[in-house]
Amino acid sequence: MPSGKVALQDILKQLGGEFLGPSKSLEKDILRIMPLAAAGSSDISFFSAAKYASQFASSNAACVIAKRADWVLARDAGYLGACIATEDPYLYFANLTTWWQINALRSPAHVRIHPSAVISASAKISPTATVGPLCVIEDGASLGDRSHLKSRVTLGQDCQIGADCIVHSGVVIGADGFGFAQDKSDGSWVKIAQLGRVTIGNQVEIGANTCIDRGALDDTVIEDGVKLDNLIQIGHNVRIGKHTALAGCVGVAGSANIGAHCTVGGGAVVLGHLEIADNVHISAATVVTKSIKKPGMYTGFFPIDDNDNWEKNAVTLKQLHLLRERIKQLERK
Amino acid sequence: MPSGKVALQDILKQLGGEFLGPSKSLEKDILRIMPLAAAGSSDISFFSAAKYASQFASSNAACVIAKRADWVLARDAGYLGACIATEDPYLYFANLTTWWQINALRSPAHVRIHPSAVISASAKISPTATVGPLCVIEDGASLGDRSHLKSRVTLGQDCQIGADCIVHSGVVIGADGFGFAQDKSDGSWVKIAQLGRVTIGNQVEIGANTCIDRGALDDTVIEDGVKLDNLIQIGHNVRIGKHTALAGCVGVAGSANIGAHCTVGGGAVVLGHLEIADNVHISAATVVTKSIKKPGMYTGFFPIDDNDNWEKNAVTLKQLHLLRERIKQLERK
Amino acid sequence: MPSGKVALQDILKQLGGEFLGPSKSLEKDILRIMPLAAAGSSDISFFSAAKYASQFASSNAACVIAKRADWVLARDAGYLGACIATEDPYLYFANLTTWWQINALRSPAHVRIHPSAVISASAKISPTATVGPLCVIEDGASLGDRSHLKSRVTLGQDCQIGADCIVHSGVVIGADGFGFAQDKSDGSWVKIAQLGRVTIGNQVEIGANTCIDRGALDDTVIEDGVKLDNLIQIGHNVRIGKHTALAGCVGVAGSANIGAHCTVGGGAVVLGHLEIADNVHISAATVVTKSIKKPGMYTGFFPIDDNDNWEKNAVTLKQLHLLRERIKQLERK
Repeated sequence: MPSGKVALQDILKQLGGEFLGPSKSLEKDILRIMPLAAAGSSDISFFSAAKYASQFASSNAACVIAKRADWVLARDAGYLGACIATEDPYLYFANLTTWWQINALRSPAHVRIHPSAVISASAKISPTATVGPLCVIEDGASLGDRSHLKSRVTLGQDCQIGADCIVHSGVVIGADGFGFAQDKSDGSWVKIAQLGRVTIGNQVEIGANTCIDRGALDDTVIEDGVKLDNLIQIGHNVRIGKHTALAGCVGVAGSANIGAHCTVGGGAVVLGHLEIADNVHISAATVVTKSIKKPGMYTGFFPIDDNDNWEKNAVTLKQLHLLRERIKQLERK
Repeated sequence: MPSGKVALQDILKQLGGEFLGPSKSLEKDILRIMPLAAAGSSDISFFSAAKYASQFASSNAACVIAKRADWVLARDAGYLGACIATEDPYLYFANLTTWWQINALRSPAHVRIHPSAVISASAKISPTATVGPLCVIEDGASLGDRSHLKSRVTLGQDCQIGADCIVHSGVVIGADGFGFAQDKSDGSWVKIAQLGRVTIGNQVEIGANTCIDRGALDDTVIEDGVKLDNLIQIGHNVRIGKHTALAGCVGVAGSANIGAHCTVGGGAVVLGHLEIADNVHISAATVVTKSIKKPGMYTGFFPIDDNDNWEKNAVTLKQLHLLRERIKQLERK
Repeated sequence: MPSGKVALQDILKQLGGEFLGPSKSLEKDILRIMPLAAAGSSDISFFSAAKYASQFASSNAACVIAKRADWVLARDAGYLGACIATEDPYLYFANLTTWWQINALRSPAHVRIHPSAVISASAKISPTATVGPLCVIEDGASLGDRSHLKSRVTLGQDCQIGADCIVHSGVVIGADGFGFAQDKSDGSWVKIAQLGRVTIGNQVEIGANTCIDRGALDDTVIEDGVKLDNLIQIGHNVRIGKHTALAGCVGVAGSANIGAHCTVGGGAVVLGHLEIADNVHISAATVVTKSIKKPGMYTGFFPIDDNDNWEKNAVTLKQLHLLRERIKQLERK
């Protein structure tokens, strides 16, 4: 990472926490935020998982963000640096990164509305929002306070984004949902014009090249605090509840209703017209084929194996229900 | 959805159908198209699936598009509104949405060739085609009558799009196919220049951020009436037959040949150099590893389960062929 | 493919190989490179796989690139044309395609830095690099010699691309990685600013609409000669070793470390924080859930079946570990 330069006491002053260790460290300049093992004597690091205890003990970091008790253990095991003690070191680290980006690093040249963006006169852009190069904002769309469209984002007609959202490059919000009626006379597909919108709450982040389709009649709804990774497909009339996070390459089919505080692993597929309760966690690459009413963790993918073994099992799998019959027969004897 | 205002009799005049119910309804202004359950007394709705019969009976819609017999049942069960009777209500609804978008809603400011698009002087653009903001059309490419590239579409060199196509934002047509020869001396990959094109028929719709690669020597071909959802990858030299529809996140590897009137579910993967017959339906997340000669429905994904149960089965699955041996042994005794 | 016009002897002069067959063919004009079966009497083709031996024998191609011994067999079986004999015909063909594109076909109008690109004054662009229409290059980014960004590519702040790279349309390099700390007080996600970069080596090719996220603290690293197909997601802090190739729609989660000379099939998912050794080959649609230390081929997807049979097996699969218990019981008797 690029180097900055911030006195340790400035971090404490801005972000809080209890200072532990040699007080002369307070005036030290911190140049980088680094993982424990790679941190040098001008770096700050953090400790948040027990498996890194030995890395903490031997770290050269000038300061480590940690729970007080963990610092005591690390110090007794040899760690010589200072500590910012806090109840949730990983959360403190998260807040530090953002503060660091703004205060310690060279700010990128900032243009609020890039002149290359194509913005409809009827769009409502908050005076504190940022629109990056080569974005397209269509008629009647709106973008809330402090929200930021990075480069090459399309925000479709009448679609709404709330406050404090980040939309990464290449995102398409408000393309038509995939809706067709089949003409039985020749099997051709007749388009159903997609007349709904996309409405996105506050504090939503949307990853690069992700697509969120507009609703057919009603809207597609992304609630506050939702985090979407890259290359995700959200079908028309989907609703995603507050603070739910979807990893990369997830596909959510039309009219699926995903609850709040859920997580969906990378490459998972959620079929349409089903409901997922709050606090449901779907593993990567899992196909959700029916509604899930109960919080918990759900999984379904074929376990990886060396190819030869996989082939033998795959062949056998295609006769699995026959094997069950044979077991039944044996049991009857 | 946004409101419009259209007299019911105008809908009938334009789209046909038999009017049933109180004739004074004909002069009523219809403001929205809505689902049965949500429709109010100024809305039009449609009935196309038996499971919604009770919703029909209790609907407040001013008018419901339905089969005559279904309207009679609904009326006898309490429905008080009018009906447009037609043999295929869902198809009528589809036609209504498009008519509604053009006639009842505010038209978006329409620019035929947006000045921000970068278009080669040697491209052939129909005088009735529309090119949205920030599109790129390369040398020798062509775009047919009434076809519409939404924003930020790339149409590559010499690629062709027929008439009445819709290409959504972020689509890339004619990037190089993924073709390399391995140099055995060092394991490096030597590029095979991709010299073919992409040719796309009429009435094709292509979803946001979907990619269709140009052929290596021959062309990649998308036939008339094909519908591609968002974030689909079509490899070089693929051919997709008429009126076939692919859902989001599908990947089709090079030289696959998919028939006409097929459907492929979201997240499915079609391997390369294989043939899929007409009228084949592939379930979501299924991996097609060999040619399919017979129409029908084909499926292959691991069923979702609660994580604990999945883990037990996944472990056992890796020894499945050994279980079969043990059954055989037992049978021999 | 579009036609060119090159005398056969010019191909030999430029690309080498041993000429076999009637020497008058040397002056013949070659118009196209074509597959064996489709090649006509003014076309050149190649033979690289035994299964096409009968196509070689009956091919009308003016010249076929082949091993000497294979040409002898084909000639004895009836092939009348000439041959360029070489040890690795497919590699020769690859080199021919690139030479052909430059020398035999109409060159696209070439603009080194397209005026519609938005390029930061602090970006370092090699004087031999090419930047296509509507690209965005942010502060401090760099692009090496002869590298080519096609249209609508975003190269993020401080990210680096080496020499001789090709980056296809719609690619996003350097969007934020997907990093959040959960605030346990309300379950909301607090952003971890992504302070690392993406560094890309030489001879890398990146397919359309693919995304490579910047690192959280350290960099995301793509080594020399890596080939990425379309619509691939590379998470933050991933490292991909030399000459590894990933097919379309692959997702690689954060901090995965993939070795050199690997291949990953389309739609596969590689989970985060794991290591894959050199020379590992992952089949399409396989989920890599743990480190792989040993070279070889690894697979894991549910085999496709007709839907009825799949359903029976899927139901049984959910009780597989119970079946194992029943077998154990039977064995005990």
